[in-house]
Amino acid sequence: MKKFFLLLLSVSTAVNVYAQTRPRELGIKIGVLPTGTLNAITDVTGVKVGQITLSEGTDIRTGVTAIVPHDGNIFQQKVPAAIYIGNGFGKLAGYSQVEELGTIETPIILTNTLNVPTAVDALLDWTLGQTGNENVRSVNPVVGETNDGYLNDIRSRYVKREHVLNALAQAGSGPVAEGNVGAGTGTVCFNWKGGIGTSSRKLPVKLGGYTVGVIVQTNFGGVLKVNGVPVGEELGKYAFKESLDKSSDGSCMIVVATDAPLDARNLKRLAKRAIMGMAQTGGIASNGSGDYVIAFSTVNRVLQDAPQSTYGATLLNNDYVSPLFLAVIEATEEAIINSLFMAKTTTGTQGHLAEELPKEKVLELMKKYGH
Amino acid sequence: MKKFFLLLLSVSTAVNVYAQTRPRELGIKIGVLPTGTLNAITDVTGVKVGQITLSEGTDIRTGVTAIVPHDGNIFQQKVPAAIYIGNGFGKLAGYSQVEELGTIETPIILTNTLNVPTAVDALLDWTLGQTGNENVRSVNPVVGETNDGYLNDIRSRYVKREHVLNALAQAGSGPVAEGNVGAGTGTVCFNWKGGIGTSSRKLPVKLGGYTVGVIVQTNFGGVLKVNGVPVGEELGKYAFKESLDKSSDGSCMIVVATDAPLDARNLKRLAKRAIMGMAQTGGIASNGSGDYVIAFSTVNRVLQDAPQSTYGATLLNNDYVSPLFLAVIEATEEAIINSLFMAKTTTGTQGHLAEELPKEKVLELMKKYGH
Amino acid sequence: MKKFFLLLLSVSTAVNVYAQTRPRELGIKIGVLPTGTLNAITDVTGVKVGQITLSEGTDIRTGVTAIVPHDGNIFQQKVPAAIYIGNGFGKLAGYSQVEELGTIETPIILTNTLNVPTAVDALLDWTLGQTGNENVRSVNPVVGETNDGYLNDIRSRYVKREHVLNALAQAGSGPVAEGNVGAGTGTVCFNWKGGIGTSSRKLPVKLGGYTVGVIVQTNFGGVLKVNGVPVGEELGKYAFKESLDKSSDGSCMIVVATDAPLDARNLKRLAKRAIMGMAQTGGIASNGSGDYVIAFSTVNRVLQDAPQSTYGATLLNNDYVSPLFLAVIEATEEAIINSLFMAKTTTGTQGHLAEELPKEKVLELMKKYGH
Amino acid sequence: MKKFFLLLLSVSTAVNVYAQTRPRELGIKIGVLPTGTLNAITDVTGVKVGQITLSEGTDIRTGVTAIVPHDGNIFQQKVPAAIYIGNGFGKLAGYSQVEELGTIETPIILTNTLNVPTAVDALLDWTLGQTGNENVRSVNPVVGETNDGYLNDIRSRYVKREHVLNALAQAGSGPVAEGNVGAGTGTVCFNWKGGIGTSSRKLPVKLGGYTVGVIVQTNFGGVLKVNGVPVGEELGKYAFKESLDKSSDGSCMIVVATDAPLDARNLKRLAKRAIMGMAQTGGIASNGSGDYVIAFSTVNRVLQDAPQSTYGATLLNNDYVSPLFLAVIEATEEAIINSLFMAKTTTGTQGHLAEELPKEKVLELMKKYGH
Repeated sequence: MKKFFLLLLSVSTAVNVYAQTRPRELGIKIGVLPTGTLNAITDVTGVKVGQITLSEGTDIRTGVTAIVPHDGNIFQQKVPAAIYIGNGFGKLAGYSQVEELGTIETPIILTNTLNVPTAVDALLDWTLGQTGNENVRSVNPVVGETNDGYLNDIRSRYVKREHVLNALAQAGSGPVAEGNVGAGTGTVCFNWKGGIGTSSRKLPVKLGGYTVGVIVQTNFGGVLKVNGVPVGEELGKYAFKESLDKSSDGSCMIVVATDAPLDARNLKRLAKRAIMGMAQTGGIASNGSGDYVIAFSTVNRVLQDAPQSTYGATLLNNDYVSPLFLAVIEATEEAIINSLFMAKTTTGTQGHLAEELPKEKVLELMKKYGH
Repeated sequence: MKKFFLLLLSVSTAVNVYAQTRPRELGIKIGVLPTGTLNAITDVTGVKVGQITLSEGTDIRTGVTAIVPHDGNIFQQKVPAAIYIGNGFGKLAGYSQVEELGTIETPIILTNTLNVPTAVDALLDWTLGQTGNENVRSVNPVVGETNDGYLNDIRSRYVKREHVLNALAQAGSGPVAEGNVGAGTGTVCFNWKGGIGTSSRKLPVKLGGYTVGVIVQTNFGGVLKVNGVPVGEELGKYAFKESLDKSSDGSCMIVVATDAPLDARNLKRLAKRAIMGMAQTGGIASNGSGDYVIAFSTVNRVLQDAPQSTYGATLLNNDYVSPLFLAVIEATEEAIINSLFMAKTTTGTQGHLAEELPKEKVLELMKKYGH
Repeated sequence: MKKFFLLLLSVSTAVNVYAQTRPRELGIKIGVLPTGTLNAITDVTGVKVGQITLSEGTDIRTGVTAIVPHDGNIFQQKVPAAIYIGNGFGKLAGYSQVEELGTIETPIILTNTLNVPTAVDALLDWTLGQTGNENVRSVNPVVGETNDGYLNDIRSRYVKREHVLNALAQAGSGPVAEGNVGAGTGTVCFNWKGGIGTSSRKLPVKLGGYTVGVIVQTNFGGVLKVNGVPVGEELGKYAFKESLDKSSDGSCMIVVATDAPLDARNLKRLAKRAIMGMAQTGGIASNGSGDYVIAFSTVNRVLQDAPQSTYGATLLNNDYVSPLFLAVIEATEEAIINSLFMAKTTTGTQGHLAEELPKEKVLELMKKYGH
Repeated sequence: MKKFFLLLLSVSTAVNVYAQTRPRELGIKIGVLPTGTLNAITDVTGVKVGQITLSEGTDIRTGVTAIVPHDGNIFQQKVPAAIYIGNGFGKLAGYSQVEELGTIETPIILTNTLNVPTAVDALLDWTLGQTGNENVRSVNPVVGETNDGYLNDIRSRYVKREHVLNALAQAGSGPVAEGNVGAGTGTVCFNWKGGIGTSSRKLPVKLGGYTVGVIVQTNFGGVLKVNGVPVGEELGKYAFKESLDKSSDGSCMIVVATDAPLDARNLKRLAKRAIMGMAQTGGIASNGSGDYVIAFSTVNRVLQDAPQSTYGATLLNNDYVSPLFLAVIEATEEAIINSLFMAKTTTGTQGHLAEELPKEKVLELMKKYGH
């Protein structure tokens, strides 16, 4: 057990080790809407991210990414939320209660497929142990996953409760590490090394002024496009090129945060649009994909033990949500592309190799295609 | 840890300790269709049930109930399945993949709310460890729960992986223990002691001749009716009688098995009808309920690595499913009533008391109401 | 065309012609909650009902029932709403927009299966023609139906736009005609004559004080229970008694109104509970059933052209909805039973006969069964 | 009434009048999979399309597009089908029964929003009138729509039953007219003139050899991309450029046909992927969009009066559906782009103008962006 603590890389180390360049700094401008300050999910005030990277020896390539909706006791002050399932070949924990009640009452954890129960248990520990939750006997942990079994010896379930609790403990606002970190340590995307990516959009005041932030764990396939450029085709690496292999399988976990005053119904609509952003990268949500989108708002919190039977809410009219849809689509597309640009070539279990996106070639292609 | 092994009661012991009389033996005949031989989910050929009861001291009142769809390697030979959510205030694991792919690839485990991750982990152990599954890197465990926190010190999460594996190991065909056993050890239903109940229907040949079996973990509230008789009202114990308390909260897990050749779409329809059976007992699926129905068929198994791109299936026409609907409704109603009749008065954590249904009074009421 | 105007029976006439006795006046008290003043959907302030009965010659047995949510311009002041589908073998118009936007923007029309488009067209006429709607170019009419083709020569589509507009024009608060009126003129339920039924519940102040009203168009089958008494079995008339016939097919349209401040998410939950009320009558939602529940709230109206991007809403906390669930269940059960007691023996097309429930025998049975 | 018959343009005329050049002939090759022979939905054997264009004076800009799944009696030989709702601000008729039973039993009609009931009625006429349907008393017409009210005086509901019946009567295999024809006569897409578009993909034998065909009625908005090239941005015409207008509202109807042996569950998955194709064109499924996808298979037909309780079906394994997903995505993207390239500048009611896509400029942009 001790072993695992030695493996922990702090987020700052992770940033150094894996630092690559974000596409936007390379001149790749996705979409028409402006980003938030950090171009990260943490641009939504109060949202924090913590990541634990497990990478050791030949077999361990996995980790934990925690998204914390706000600073308070999340169980006592739930956030409005919804989950959309693009393709359900996955093991997301927490779906039905979020859909029924329209709220999330824990942080969101992303990890590998076979460690979902570990993370659920850790969220129970975390929630039951918080001051004010002494009498809580029911908790709905939300845990997403993708399968990093190509690079990671997933059957060994290396993630332990401590890793999850540590990810939560170190969650912070500020820039978010991308690429081979946290839950993205061992993932593969479009047959290249995938990972964690994040992006945000800040609507102009005339469109409401709200912020939308997205974080993704990319592990899926298809026919890669970078800002519309057919990179997958040009590099000769795309789904079903040679045969009906399952290389397009895999999954994408997407978390969307916003400060717009949306209820669960409109958050579900935002969540649906994230898959449209994924589509713009050439993802196809193949049979073997677990493509889940969890969307939450940081406003209109719902109290666990409401003092009165009714509560007042300020809600955005349906007529005003469309710019938020566009923001989600753009931020998701960019977050996915970010994950690919920030990931680094990795070898893993059984000698498997996932090369990083050949950025030089890609930039040449971007030029060739007029960008 | 050792402690827990001492707590294990084998199923046969459990039967002895908690044996009560089934309503049908007392002349309470629910519905118009005949039951199967055992009037249990195990009347569906191949289906097995295993239960581990944890009951010790004042605080431990919980357990595990395992339903095994068939004798083979379930991961390699999946069964067609669907899940219907009556009310989603619950922590069911496995929902989205069942819905997406239309199959279940593990046994189904029922336990308490906070031990869902334990059971998921155990199902991973169980599946990964089976011969033939050496290369499996993705498994979708299906685990349901209700919250036994009134009698059980649920925050201590007493169920361990070993309990789950033991429940699976001892799963058998034959009669199924009911009442305070397995996952029903600490549950409360209609403000009386609830528990595990089971029932079945065997359609006459003219209606198809198929068998439907149901098993329930009852932990919910409402206004109890026993075969239409207003027992709750007569005994002065029903939801909201005095105030807006949460005593009607709780949950009901329902598993439906059949040998009818149904695909996932029609199994979903069967699952929906189980809630109609619950309704006949006076259940109201209150806000705090997690009412889930998992339905599977034992025929038309789906192979993990199909040798060919297509497979042949024999399927029941839509026009012939209605008798199965009635069978599900009746068997669910009877399984719930069975759980109440077979349960026994129990004290638990914090001195909480759940009295068993006062059978003598109930039988008097049945007589008063012409039965 | 003229012919049809001659057929119109005003509601008041209808009441006289078909007047029977409501079960509650006969001592049949369903449920534990008190009814509203009229025991009708019109107990919800502002809700109005209008019905046109078409019954002439041997072939015409059909009609229109209109439910109007409030007195104002409904398109401009939409009501929060949701629709739950118990079984979807039906032709309900308007489903997807209600689900997407969470509102209803027209009255609700019930009629026969093949006249749904007629009623949709009439709702377009009605809405486009209202003052204030001069520029409206998109309307989502909500029209439900059941198939009265056993008594009514349904292929002739006797309902005309004028009938629908007349039903709307004469909609009023006050008592609601039941039995063979409006959309219930030609329906059959549990193999007896069905029809329109209505009921309501008024929650005690300690449970919120809200009113729930239900109206049903009953045309379905199963194993009839009247307040728990096995009437169907005793009278020897129930589904699949002799064979796998389709007599249990048919449908049930249910409309639920409330003055509780619920959004679409919680209204959907109310809608789901109505099917649980139907279940208590012995309905099985057979393969051929179109069982739809439309639930709306009269408060928190949503403006068509909102002056601002956000709006304030007062909403009921989840914890307080359970008594409303019970109210819906009880009112639905009673509305269905009302429809049967108020219906009258009818012959129709092809000499088909639907006998009314033999009330004397039923009352004897009620006595025999202790009521 | 007679007037309208004079307006009818036969499909062949329509082709001449509106003929433009398809993008693929201009060198715009979307996707990596090969098209079918005609690059049209009619590449799926047996599928036929018929269109009636209503364009007269300043106010009439609408029409009907009929998609006929096979040559036989469709009611008696239903096709497996599913419907996915991308955004439900629309008036699609027929949704719930398709979802419940997994089949379509009429041709599919596309028209304008306020003429949906007209088309439903016409499908009733058509179905009830067919030989072999003399005793049919229940039909589930499937009718989709988009709102052409910018160019068409939609409140006048110019489409009559005869137009629908004529569209059905002249349905044929072979090339399908695109652009300003049928239900696309008055639609607007990305602020340019939209219309009808179609495309297909034929999987290589190694991927199954199946054909997927798509037809679209485009009337939506967003930020147009043509094969990845940011045409909308370059031309300065895209959603929310200036303000929060509703120009991105509108809708997209998509029909997907295939000869792959899929049941309703997998057809639903195909339908979901069509929205991913729409996403690649820059569509955002705005608040005011009705984005519906109807997918059907021409094999495994389901008989109305099945002679036996069970039927045999050959079904594609889940593992083999992913190439079909890609085919749907590509064909949908191309069908939408086709609709834009084939549409022609149109003026309509109130002097409204919808300019066609400026193809020369677009082709320059394609060149600038390396295509």
